[in-house]
Amino acid sequence: MSATKAIAEDTTATFTGWASTGSLPLKKFSYHPRPLGPKDVEVEISHCGICGSDVHTMTSGWGELSGPCITGHEIVGTVVKAGPESLRKVGDLVGIGAIVDACGDCKDCKEGFNQLCHKATYTYNATYHDSGAKSYGGYADRVRVNSQYAHKIPSEISAAEAAPLLCAGITTYTPLKHFGAGPGKRVGVMGIGGLGHLAIQWAAAFKADEVVAISTSDSKREEAKKLGATKFVNSRNEEERKAARRSLDILLLTSNDKDTDWAELIDYVANHGTLVLLALPEIPTIAVPPGSLLMRHVSIAGSLIGGWEITQEMLEFAAKTGVRPWVEKMPMSDANAAIKHIMEGRPRYRIVMETEAAARLQKH
Amino acid sequence: MSATKAIAEDTTATFTGWASTGSLPLKKFSYHPRPLGPKDVEVEISHCGICGSDVHTMTSGWGELSGPCITGHEIVGTVVKAGPESLRKVGDLVGIGAIVDACGDCKDCKEGFNQLCHKATYTYNATYHDSGAKSYGGYADRVRVNSQYAHKIPSEISAAEAAPLLCAGITTYTPLKHFGAGPGKRVGVMGIGGLGHLAIQWAAAFKADEVVAISTSDSKREEAKKLGATKFVNSRNEEERKAARRSLDILLLTSNDKDTDWAELIDYVANHGTLVLLALPEIPTIAVPPGSLLMRHVSIAGSLIGGWEITQEMLEFAAKTGVRPWVEKMPMSDANAAIKHIMEGRPRYRIVMETEAAARLQKH
Repeated sequence: MSATKAIAEDTTATFTGWASTGSLPLKKFSYHPRPLGPKDVEVEISHCGICGSDVHTMTSGWGELSGPCITGHEIVGTVVKAGPESLRKVGDLVGIGAIVDACGDCKDCKEGFNQLCHKATYTYNATYHDSGAKSYGGYADRVRVNSQYAHKIPSEISAAEAAPLLCAGITTYTPLKHFGAGPGKRVGVMGIGGLGHLAIQWAAAFKADEVVAISTSDSKREEAKKLGATKFVNSRNEEERKAARRSLDILLLTSNDKDTDWAELIDYVANHGTLVLLALPEIPTIAVPPGSLLMRHVSIAGSLIGGWEITQEMLEFAAKTGVRPWVEKMPMSDANAAIKHIMEGRPRYRIVMETEAAARLQKH
Repeated sequence: MSATKAIAEDTTATFTGWASTGSLPLKKFSYHPRPLGPKDVEVEISHCGICGSDVHTMTSGWGELSGPCITGHEIVGTVVKAGPESLRKVGDLVGIGAIVDACGDCKDCKEGFNQLCHKATYTYNATYHDSGAKSYGGYADRVRVNSQYAHKIPSEISAAEAAPLLCAGITTYTPLKHFGAGPGKRVGVMGIGGLGHLAIQWAAAFKADEVVAISTSDSKREEAKKLGATKFVNSRNEEERKAARRSLDILLLTSNDKDTDWAELIDYVANHGTLVLLALPEIPTIAVPPGSLLMRHVSIAGSLIGGWEITQEMLEFAAKTGVRPWVEKMPMSDANAAIKHIMEGRPRYRIVMETEAAARLQKH
């Protein structure tokens, strides 16, 4: 499914964005994109959400960068060029998430888990397996990708609101679907931020018996209920924490750090339930108390974004059910201010940067 | 389902067995059993297997004992008394595993997981929730239990071979069934001992695509194949270990200790696969590398014996398919020698102690 055959006249194009070379601030950076292949699209970016992964990457929190890196994998824009075999046509509003390529033939790809494919290519700070071209993300004016990963945005969803669905949305949708959130299940969401505020909405839309929002303070109690939570637990309130013990069939953990108390987390999970990690800890191992695994049949699992099929399904589901991220818009020309805002404060709940192309969008 | 109404004339009975008060050797000990309730049976014990849990308990490895403790939860014998509502009748050959009571009404009990019931009573070193009576195990001449937990032994299975099925058998059968071992699945068994040699047989009987026996030496290579393994991996042979990387959908871990390398174990598990702990580590937490959970959708789970329904199913399945433990018989009068044999060497694969009642058995 890789696009290797280049369209000659496109090879001298130049795209410009905001790049990191390992530390802040981001600086303007231009690059020559990979040649537009027959299945590829070139997208004029109108919106790009800011994900925690972007911040980890641009500050070298996950390791050194190999060169200037344009982050951003919650990309929305309009197709302005399309290869002859493209699935999208010029003028389509599309969204691009955290992966932009996979082999399409392996067991994982065939089962819909393109993100686990050994040839999966991340949207930025990665190298395409076939061509060796570098991948660049969405803090930019344009991007070229295989059209398979340029998802069609349903007309019900605005371009700005679509952006966070491409990473925060699919990251929370996939495990809830996989572990069967729905009638008969009690779902917990630990951490009410960019991921968590969507997880609560999905679980409510899936009609889970209970949707329990868990946070370390009371500040989001009312908002959690607006998002669809049936219950709110302040994890520092001993009484509320105790009342919620062993009550959840699925507990999504949206973030964690070196001080995360795994025993306390597992204590929220009911017999036969599953604790699902959605964010990679920065420490090499986590200290799991094995007793509950054996004596209560609790499982610990993880989940990473989603393949192209479930991503498209998620967008349609959001269109139909009204699940939407709560976004704060900022101009992409203020990218550094936006990053600072995230690192200092707590956007409620996702920052989406707009380019000049946003003003030219018609319908969205 | 508890038997609270006593049959008066039985209250002065005396049973005799081998007890620990926290250290070895075991000593002869007599106790008055709980009154025979309407649903209870009294069983004349002919056989009792020795489980690793027995050794942990009798040597205070899992904590101090509250008093003299008769261990043993792989019990086989003949019903000699039966309450009026008993499911078994006098003369039945029955098997008793690691639990002897549960409430029968909770969610876990209703779903067949009596072993996770908050009122589950272990066969020894425990206290019945209703009466407060102590439970005593099978290194003894007799035992009284609720007939629900006195499983009928199919006539195809000898009494000695039935004994290890009641703990080692169900401990391995339950997770293989639960996680779907069968066609299309690749099953690994780490540790070829009392549990492992049965796990290999179950996986083969379930017709798993591959049954991979993993051991720390070559000494069990041939035996593993006789048990039904399609492949043997010596985990200290770098080449074999590498060839088996990411190849297993289900990996049962039959034992572990403080030096267990959890990253190496998880490395055997395929994307979307599950590592299942079957033995409680003696350390309070295990160091799990979270990367594979997120990036490869690997899960870590645990499993504890089985409820009464699946235990009976397991016995019928063994009868039908020919799955049998490999047993070494020793007289129960030599209980201390049998324990020594286990602690020093490596029985292949399960020691079953016989009482004088064994000679009186007809059919088995």
